[in-house]
Amino acid sequence: MAAEVSAQLLIEKHRPTLDQALETIRTRAYWSPHPEHPKAYGENGTLDAPAGKAAFDALLNTRIDLDQPGTDGWTGGEVSPYGIELGVEYPHPDPDVLLPAMRAAMPAWRDAGAETRAVVCLEILARISARTHEFAHAVMHTSGQAFMMAFQAGGPHAQDRGLEAVAYAYAEQVRTPAAADWSKPQGKRDPLNLHKQFTPVPRGIALLVGCNTFPTWNGYPGLFASLATGNPVLVKPHPRAVLPLALTVRVAREVLTEAGFDPNLVALAAERPGEGLAKSLAVRPEVRIIDYTGSTAFGDWLESNARQAQVYTEKAGVNTVIVESTDDYKGMLANLAFSLSLYSGQMCTTPQNLLIPGDGITTDQGPKSYDEVVTDLAGAVDALLGDDARANALLGALVNPDVKARLEAAAGLGEVALASREISNPEFPGAVVRSPLMVKLDGTKPDADAPYLEECFGPVSFAVAVDSASDAVELLRRTVRDKGAMTVGAYSTSPEFEHLVAEVCLEECAQLSLNLTGGVYVNQTAAFSDFHGSGGNPAANSALCDGAFVANRFRVVEVRRGA
Amino acid sequence: MAAEVSAQLLIEKHRPTLDQALETIRTRAYWSPHPEHPKAYGENGTLDAPAGKAAFDALLNTRIDLDQPGTDGWTGGEVSPYGIELGVEYPHPDPDVLLPAMRAAMPAWRDAGAETRAVVCLEILARISARTHEFAHAVMHTSGQAFMMAFQAGGPHAQDRGLEAVAYAYAEQVRTPAAADWSKPQGKRDPLNLHKQFTPVPRGIALLVGCNTFPTWNGYPGLFASLATGNPVLVKPHPRAVLPLALTVRVAREVLTEAGFDPNLVALAAERPGEGLAKSLAVRPEVRIIDYTGSTAFGDWLESNARQAQVYTEKAGVNTVIVESTDDYKGMLANLAFSLSLYSGQMCTTPQNLLIPGDGITTDQGPKSYDEVVTDLAGAVDALLGDDARANALLGALVNPDVKARLEAAAGLGEVALASREISNPEFPGAVVRSPLMVKLDGTKPDADAPYLEECFGPVSFAVAVDSASDAVELLRRTVRDKGAMTVGAYSTSPEFEHLVAEVCLEECAQLSLNLTGGVYVNQTAAFSDFHGSGGNPAANSALCDGAFVANRFRVVEVRRGA
Repeated sequence: MAAEVSAQLLIEKHRPTLDQALETIRTRAYWSPHPEHPKAYGENGTLDAPAGKAAFDALLNTRIDLDQPGTDGWTGGEVSPYGIELGVEYPHPDPDVLLPAMRAAMPAWRDAGAETRAVVCLEILARISARTHEFAHAVMHTSGQAFMMAFQAGGPHAQDRGLEAVAYAYAEQVRTPAAADWSKPQGKRDPLNLHKQFTPVPRGIALLVGCNTFPTWNGYPGLFASLATGNPVLVKPHPRAVLPLALTVRVAREVLTEAGFDPNLVALAAERPGEGLAKSLAVRPEVRIIDYTGSTAFGDWLESNARQAQVYTEKAGVNTVIVESTDDYKGMLANLAFSLSLYSGQMCTTPQNLLIPGDGITTDQGPKSYDEVVTDLAGAVDALLGDDARANALLGALVNPDVKARLEAAAGLGEVALASREISNPEFPGAVVRSPLMVKLDGTKPDADAPYLEECFGPVSFAVAVDSASDAVELLRRTVRDKGAMTVGAYSTSPEFEHLVAEVCLEECAQLSLNLTGGVYVNQTAAFSDFHGSGGNPAANSALCDGAFVANRFRVVEVRRGA
Repeated sequence: MAAEVSAQLLIEKHRPTLDQALETIRTRAYWSPHPEHPKAYGENGTLDAPAGKAAFDALLNTRIDLDQPGTDGWTGGEVSPYGIELGVEYPHPDPDVLLPAMRAAMPAWRDAGAETRAVVCLEILARISARTHEFAHAVMHTSGQAFMMAFQAGGPHAQDRGLEAVAYAYAEQVRTPAAADWSKPQGKRDPLNLHKQFTPVPRGIALLVGCNTFPTWNGYPGLFASLATGNPVLVKPHPRAVLPLALTVRVAREVLTEAGFDPNLVALAAERPGEGLAKSLAVRPEVRIIDYTGSTAFGDWLESNARQAQVYTEKAGVNTVIVESTDDYKGMLANLAFSLSLYSGQMCTTPQNLLIPGDGITTDQGPKSYDEVVTDLAGAVDALLGDDARANALLGALVNPDVKARLEAAAGLGEVALASREISNPEFPGAVVRSPLMVKLDGTKPDADAPYLEECFGPVSFAVAVDSASDAVELLRRTVRDKGAMTVGAYSTSPEFEHLVAEVCLEECAQLSLNLTGGVYVNQTAAFSDFHGSGGNPAANSALCDGAFVANRFRVVEVRRGA
C-alpha cells in the first residue's frame, strides 16, 4: 500500500502531544488536549453541534460496511435507551477468515516501530476528536447517558484515556534501546564484543469486549494499548452499544490505510442476537490479549478459560462512602447527591453503600443523627433533581430493562428513605428515566447475604447504619476484600480516622477520595492523573492506566551477533 | 525494632550502584559491580577462597536455625551430585503460623518506600557478594556445577540478575510521583483543585519455588523483584538445592533486622521428602505472587490452579541451532562444542537440536557434508574434553539420577554420532560425570512424536538432517511455537537466510544468537543487557528482566482530597 500520510508527517504533527502526555503521566498534573466544551468544536475541520447531529442522523437505518474480509452477513438491532431504533447494520465476521487476515497485518505494523505506531494511534484519536459531536449522539443513544455526559465522558475523556494508554505503551517499548553494543573486558585478552538488536514484538490478536454503559471510555484504553504495542485489535462491542465502537473501527481503518498499513489491524466483530461471540472468540488460539469490562461472572470465566491470552478485566464491585464527620455538611450533601444521581448511578464508580454511625455524626451545623443525615441527603437529591429538565440532563436514561427491574426490586429491601420517581423526557418519550432510590439498612450485624454486600448496579444506594465509625472501617475492609471496589469515599474531620480509612485502602488496594465537597466527585477520574480502579481487589485485575496495563502486551526479541 | 543501619546510610552506600544499574538497563551496555574472578575476593570484608571453603565446610552437618515463627520441626537430606551428604537441617514451616507473621511485616515495609526497599535489597546482595566463595561451594554441591561455573553463575551472575530486578522494580515504582497537585481550569470560575498521594502497595506474600540446577541465578530475580516492590517472600527451594537459598534467606533476615524491619519479610519453606509443599503453598490465599523455574507439568499446574496469584514461570523448551553456512568453520565447531559441554548440557539454554541440511553446508574450508559437520563437531567436543581435568572443570556432575537415565535412553534413539563417556573425578569419586551424547536423527518428515520435538534435558543433542535450509526454518518455527525455546542459534553467511531466521524468531518470540564463534555462547546471557527467555513462547511466560516482570507485583493506591 502506498501511504497517503507519511509517518514522518504524523510524527511532526503528533509528537508534541505524545511528549506532553508522557510528561503528564509522570507529574500527574491536570492536562488534556481534548476540549470538554461542546462549543470548542466547529473549526479546523471539526464538526460543530449541528454538523455532528446531522452526521449521527445520517447513520440511522444504514449499513456500516467496513470492507472487512470474512464478512458472512449483517447484524444489528440496537434500540436506544431513549426509545429510538437505530436501524444500523454491521458486518458479521467469519473468524476463520478474519483472524488470519488480521494476523497477516502484524509484521509490517511491528516493523513500523513504537513511535510510528504511537503517532498513527494519535491520528486515529485526532480524527475521532474532530467528530466528538457525532460520537456524543452515538454514545448517548447506546448507553443512555444524557447528552452532555455522553459528549464529555464518551468524547474527550475517552480520548484522553486512549491517549494515556498510547503514552504508556510508547514509554514501555522505548525503555529498551533498538540496538546496543556490548563489550565485556577480558583482562589482557581482547574484550568480548556483541552487537544486539531489540525489537518489541506483538503477542497476537487483541480482543476488546466492550460494555453497554461506556463503550468508548472503557474501550479505548485496551484498544489503544494493544494497537500501540503492535497487536491487531478485534473489537467485539456489547450488542446494545455497537455504534460508537463501529465508528471507532471505521476511523481506525481509514487512518491505517492512509498511513500505508493494513486496515485489518483493527476490525469489528458485531454479534448476532444470543450468539455469545465473545465466548468463542476469547478461546481462539490467535487471540492473545483480552480487555473486558462487564459482569463478574463473565470476567471470571474469561480469566479461567482464556488461558492462551493476557486477560485484563474490570468487573463488578461494591463502592462505599463512610460518613464519619464533616466540616462542610452542605457541601458533602450536595457532592454525594450529585454522585448518586449522575447517569442514574450506572457507573462502576458510583457509591452504593453509605456507612453512617447509628448514633450520628458531628458537622459544622452541629450533631446530626443517622436519620437526619439520611433525610438531609434525600432532600439534597430531591433539590438537585427537582426540575425535570435538570433531572433529565443529569440522570440520562436507564440503560436496559435489567436496571429497571433491579431498581424496582430494591425498594423492597428495607425502609425507603428516598423513593425513585419516574421522570418524563419531553424530547424522547420512550426514555426510561428514574431518580435514585435510597434504602435504609441495618449494618450492625453484617450477614454474608446482606443486600449491601452485593453490587446492585443502577440508581440504588443503601444508607447503612453501623454501630460506630470503627465498625464502618471494618465493614469497608470486608466489602473491598470480598467484593472489590472501584472507589471508596470518606468524610471525616479527624486525621486519625482519615488515617484508619487510608490504611484499609492501602492494605485492601482501593482508590480513596477524602472529603469531596466541591465540583470533583468520587465517581470521576481524570486521565493522566487519576487511576481508574486499582487492579488489586476483586473489582478489577488492572488499572487505567499504568505500566502493568501495557508491559505484557508485547515482548522484546533480541538478536545478537558477534561484533 | 531499632535500626542498627539507617536507611540514609544505606542510600549513601548503594545509591550510586542503583543509579548505574538504572542507567545500564537503558543502554544495555556491559556492566557488573560483582567481580567474576575468584581472586578478586578477600579484602574489604569479603571471603577469599580458603575462607569461603572453610565457611562452607563449617555448614556441613549443622542445623541452620533461621529463628522463624511457625517452625514445627527440621528437615534436610541433601546429597551433593559430587557424592557428599551435606547433612544440613533446615526449619520446616507451619504455614498457619508463618504466613500471618509474614503478612504482619508488610505495612512497615510498604511505608518505607521504594528507595529504602531498593537499598536494603542491595545491602542483602552486597553481603551475599562478600560470601561468594562460600555460596560457590553451596551451589556446586547442590547443582552439580563445576566449581568455576558455580562460582560465576551462582555468584556474581546471580547477584547481577538480582540487582537488575531491584533496578526494574525501583524504576517501575517511581514512575508515578509520591504526590501531585491537580488543578483543572473552569473558565471564569475557580479551578478544581485536588491534592493526590500515590503509594505503591504490595500484592501479598510472594512464593519463590526454586530449581535444582540454578538455585540462586534463577531464584534471585523473582526474590528481589518481589521484595523490592514491598512483598514478603517465602522461599521454597528445590529439596536437592536448599543450602544456597537457605544462606540467602539468612543473610536477608540479618540485613532486614539490622535495618529495623521485620525479618519475616523473607522466610524459608524447606519441605519434607515427598511433601509437595510448593503445591499446597501455591494455592494459599495469602500467596499472591509465584515465581517458578522447573518442569512444564508443574508450571502449567501453577498457571491453571494458583489463580489467586500472579504466576511467573520458566518451564521446558527445545532449543535449536540452525547450521546453514559459516565463514569460520573452526570457530563455529569450537563454540558449539563448548555450548553442548558446559554443565553437561543441563542449562535451560543449552542447544538440543542442531538442524543441518542433509546435502551439507558451505564453509570457509569448502563444502562440508552433513556427515562431515556432525563428525567434525563430535571431534571438537572430544578435543575440548580430551583431558579429564578440563572435562571435569567444564562438565560438572549430573544433577540427579533422572538425567543419567535420560542420557542412557537417548543413545537408543538413533545413530550415535558421539558417544557419552564416563569421566572419573579424582577429588569427588562419587560424582557422576558424563560427556555429551550426540545422536543423528532424520528431520525430513517431522512426526509429532519425533524425539527432537521433546525436551531431552541433559547432555544430549540431536544432529537433525533436514531437506533444506528453508525446511530448517520451518522446523524451527514449529518447534518454538509448539514446544517453546529459551534460545535459538543460527550460523549463516547469507543475509537473506539470517533475515528468514530472525523473522521466525520475531514472529514466534524467541531470542536469537547469530554466528557465535568466539567466547560468547548461545546458552549464556548477561544481566542488564541480554534478556533471558522472551516470555512469549511456551518455554516461559516471563523474561529476565523487563518491566512486565515487575510491574504487576505491586499496585498504586491513590488518596485524593480537596486542596
